[in-house]
Amino acid sequence: MPRLYDLELSGNCHKVRLLCALLGVPVEIAPVDFMAGEHKRSPLIDKNPFGEIPIFEDGEVTLRDSQAILIYVARKWGDESWLPTDPASMAKVAEWLFAAENEIARGPNDARLHDKFGYALDLKLAREKAHCILSLMEMRLAKTQWLALDRPTIADIACMPYVAISHEGGVPLTPYPAVRAWVERVKALPRFIPMPGQE
Amino acid sequence: MPRLYDLELSGNCHKVRLLCALLGVPVEIAPVDFMAGEHKRSPLIDKNPFGEIPIFEDGEVTLRDSQAILIYVARKWGDESWLPTDPASMAKVAEWLFAAENEIARGPNDARLHDKFGYALDLKLAREKAHCILSLMEMRLAKTQWLALDRPTIADIACMPYVAISHEGGVPLTPYPAVRAWVERVKALPRFIPMPGQE
Repeated sequence: MPRLYDLELSGNCHKVRLLCALLGVPVEIAPVDFMAGEHKRSPLIDKNPFGEIPIFEDGEVTLRDSQAILIYVARKWGDESWLPTDPASMAKVAEWLFAAENEIARGPNDARLHDKFGYALDLKLAREKAHCILSLMEMRLAKTQWLALDRPTIADIACMPYVAISHEGGVPLTPYPAVRAWVERVKALPRFIPMPGQE
Repeated sequence: MPRLYDLELSGNCHKVRLLCALLGVPVEIAPVDFMAGEHKRSPLIDKNPFGEIPIFEDGEVTLRDSQAILIYVARKWGDESWLPTDPASMAKVAEWLFAAENEIARGPNDARLHDKFGYALDLKLAREKAHCILSLMEMRLAKTQWLALDRPTIADIACMPYVAISHEGGVPLTPYPAVRAWVERVKALPRFIPMPGQE
């Protein structure tokens, strides 16, 4: 069984738990004592020199970065619907994986890291970036049901967790009705599991 | 022929030009007047609502985000060697695509945006992040010839441009001999084309 080094309150870890749940892949959850810095010390720092979680182990394969792990899980246990391999569809999914890694991480995720976990970062900038990416998502989701294609893909799984809890960083979704409707569509997927703050 | 909306001084645009050159894919280069904000206005803002370049057009397909474009070009014109589709190899390449989107963008790229283009951002933080990711790359490249696999992949193409010009952000590569050797290996690839600052 694959193993996930996990923090329940991490949206990045939730992405992995969520996709595994949706695909029916059993995973051993290895809780990490994040506040004590367990991920910054051996043995975890040897598994991921970047000093971050999630870390995903499957046999001989050890992976860092939540988006890269989604790609692995989708390729190994999903089918073409979650991550298609034709050039245009894969690139369209990838556009939103990179938005999760960049704009969403530096927006709603950073604002929440400040408010909920006391990270010293530029809160005003993080909230500006949050509203910027939420406005772009609103524009997209006012026209389509799902972010990348005409069905749910790992693009939705990568982007949903921090957007759904952006209120924890002082960024309510009130001005973004299409985003809120999309969050509800993700929550309604068969076998969906929430993270704290999403209920 | 596909079209690239391009800025010669952009490392993100260079990634796309470089991969197309390496694969022998002819591309129409459409220069963008970046300083005049052409990418923030119609018609480019309609092609990419994120207001950024590169933008890549190929028939009916329009793509934003340099890393997503690399995935498209590799899947369409490359072979399995540049972006393999087996789960572990694809995820290993993806780990470094996300490092290009995150750690390299917020490190050497941001430091250069400050120093060369006058962007108002936290230079000290950008340089710290630059040294952090360069140290991680040094550790990796002290043991392997290429970032993700035992051969060049789009991981190397995504990460090389801003690393090779990090001195333009006040971050010289002097302390990173393995990174410097890797930059030279990328430059030695058949059909390599440089960007300004890399010569």
